[in-house]
Amino acid sequence: MSVNMKRIQTIIEKLASISSVPGELTRLAFSAEDEAAHNYLIELCKPYDLSIRRDQVGNLFIRKSGIEDHLPAVTFGSHIDTVVNAGKFDGPLGSVGGLEILFQLCEQGVQTRYPLELIIFTCEESSRFNYATLGSKLMCGIANRESLSRLRDKQGNSLEEAMATIGLDFTEVDQVKRNAEEFKCFFELHIEQGPRLANERKTIGVVTGIAAPIRCIVKIQGQADHSGATAMHYRRDALLGGAELALAIERAAIDAGHSTVATVSNLNAKPGVMNVVPGYCELLVDIRGIHSEARESVFTVLQQQIEQVTAKRGLSIELQLISKDQPILLPDQMVQQISRAAQDLGYAYEIMPSGAGHDAMHMATFCPTGMIFVPSKNGISHNPLEFTSWEEIEAGIKVLQLVVLEQAEKV
Amino acid sequence: MSVNMKRIQTIIEKLASISSVPGELTRLAFSAEDEAAHNYLIELCKPYDLSIRRDQVGNLFIRKSGIEDHLPAVTFGSHIDTVVNAGKFDGPLGSVGGLEILFQLCEQGVQTRYPLELIIFTCEESSRFNYATLGSKLMCGIANRESLSRLRDKQGNSLEEAMATIGLDFTEVDQVKRNAEEFKCFFELHIEQGPRLANERKTIGVVTGIAAPIRCIVKIQGQADHSGATAMHYRRDALLGGAELALAIERAAIDAGHSTVATVSNLNAKPGVMNVVPGYCELLVDIRGIHSEARESVFTVLQQQIEQVTAKRGLSIELQLISKDQPILLPDQMVQQISRAAQDLGYAYEIMPSGAGHDAMHMATFCPTGMIFVPSKNGISHNPLEFTSWEEIEAGIKVLQLVVLEQAEKV
Repeated sequence: MSVNMKRIQTIIEKLASISSVPGELTRLAFSAEDEAAHNYLIELCKPYDLSIRRDQVGNLFIRKSGIEDHLPAVTFGSHIDTVVNAGKFDGPLGSVGGLEILFQLCEQGVQTRYPLELIIFTCEESSRFNYATLGSKLMCGIANRESLSRLRDKQGNSLEEAMATIGLDFTEVDQVKRNAEEFKCFFELHIEQGPRLANERKTIGVVTGIAAPIRCIVKIQGQADHSGATAMHYRRDALLGGAELALAIERAAIDAGHSTVATVSNLNAKPGVMNVVPGYCELLVDIRGIHSEARESVFTVLQQQIEQVTAKRGLSIELQLISKDQPILLPDQMVQQISRAAQDLGYAYEIMPSGAGHDAMHMATFCPTGMIFVPSKNGISHNPLEFTSWEEIEAGIKVLQLVVLEQAEKV
Repeated sequence: MSVNMKRIQTIIEKLASISSVPGELTRLAFSAEDEAAHNYLIELCKPYDLSIRRDQVGNLFIRKSGIEDHLPAVTFGSHIDTVVNAGKFDGPLGSVGGLEILFQLCEQGVQTRYPLELIIFTCEESSRFNYATLGSKLMCGIANRESLSRLRDKQGNSLEEAMATIGLDFTEVDQVKRNAEEFKCFFELHIEQGPRLANERKTIGVVTGIAAPIRCIVKIQGQADHSGATAMHYRRDALLGGAELALAIERAAIDAGHSTVATVSNLNAKPGVMNVVPGYCELLVDIRGIHSEARESVFTVLQQQIEQVTAKRGLSIELQLISKDQPILLPDQMVQQISRAAQDLGYAYEIMPSGAGHDAMHMATFCPTGMIFVPSKNGISHNPLEFTSWEEIEAGIKVLQLVVLEQAEKV
């Protein structure tokens, strides 16, 4: 079966143009623009014999019935929300690729034994609420109304308030949960977001497991003082405490090995003005790995360093755990199927772990799940320089199409 | 001559209530609230035989004529703009103290040979434009229209735009400059903003010199990457570069001795969201001391560390010098006069440098200038916990009153 690259390109470029910020692509979850992007995809489906449903948190389901429609669905998908100042492929690739598979089947009048379902998950990126894969977590019963009630975005809006702006009712989010029995399997096609495929000159990545993040906020209370009149030895400078922790976290991740990574993505000092010693500082910390113990060792170093920095600098430091997802191993049968498909289609492939988290890691708790990667030039993502060639995109969508049709038993 | 402490207290408390932010005292220069505070003081002067003038940048002059009114004026004053989330004494003390001296003379019908002039300088704090003592710099010819044309506040407003919101015309600021011949001397009464007087149990500080800041912004360009998918050794993390510089600056200030201090008051990372390695970071750096060479040594370390961090982390770092004021020594005759006045009034005093910058450092280039400190509890200022007792405030105002009346030759 073929794919229509012109259509794919048009849809991806159109999505890239729907942004909250002129001159860049920023489409945070639950924004008016994120909603407009969803509605654009829904409009595209209207000419086809597809059933469309959105759940209470905004997850979008586009279903093509099977000959035996009571059977569990062969599912696939990704997300379309973005980070701040994003690239155009992270999320849209798997979403638009899935759409293309459904359109082709409709256009060519092809039936499958199993029903097919494209899922576009809401709020995959943590950029708005410091909380990732919100839609898939709710759907798989990993998050619920209670666990989400304290989320706040940078403007201080709660999830309830953010959802209300696009007409969703937070009090209904527990209805988002579905049952594992509804799913035969799940596939996610995504850009790699790292440099391995490009370095190894491979077109397809077959994912063996997904590293998951430990995320926390470190709140450091010191004392705001006049920056000219306060001698160095009298200071309780919260920013310097934060700087020490950031460097210790980096060292710990390098020491941990097993491809463990750790990031302090913000170090927000208050009041943050020229003539005041910072009295308060907040760090966003993200620690990831496939190897649970290596990942845990970084968290342990952070806890130890907090004690040392507290004592040394007279600060008071609170460590607030935001989320701790478990690393996920994907089933060998899915790795095998995707590898075979890549080989049959003539694409060089690499069997590899995923450093980034994905909705697939929650779907893996429901049903056999596989992930397909295509290369990211220079490993860059979450950045306007993110780039994958249209040839590589075609390869990824064709592999996805093949494994989906095999699972769905095309007639 | 007496002072009316009830009136002083009322005016200081009233000024503390004029704020742009509910529940705290924030009255940045050129804000509507800063303007309201100026107008409040002007209203208070109306019943008295005082002439009131504001110049093109908003400096406020309240003058009581002398018997020989052509003589140079005995001047004194401070400022009333504040930092973000400020205390109530930093600035208002010297302003309200000066007002009280004028009110007493008017009420008691006392004449002086020399004219008296209270100056309330505009925009002393650097909190709005990362640029301190703007009003006195213009008045003393140390800044001019050209040197100020690039200033921007946190919202990106230029000084011209900020001034326009309160009806001032930036194109006229060069008319603010006055001539040294107009001034016989200048006194500034201020809280210490450090813990020395409190530690030494002294009521009055007699200032020998004013430490001046070197201020700069360090702009660090790295690369924004996915925080999960980018291996540690591929990263060009701007925040970590900033953390290393902040700690190096601290160490350099401690090593420099001579009471040199250095502060990184902000470390602003972009995009600053949980799942992105920071691609950009900006540091605000403030280095101060009375000892020029010690101060310079910290700046040199910063330059060296920038080279090292650039090489080590693959970053591109720009050091932008914002201002470099010269430390100022105050004339011995003023130190002597203030010491004598404190002694005559029965207050224990300490001869000491000022760590903080003040408008007095620019006035010192015009005329013999003296500074009087009162204690700051625990050395805290630029903070709502800033505290000086009303007894200490009375002591400071009485010393100011005595030296002003001696210089003005009360009849």
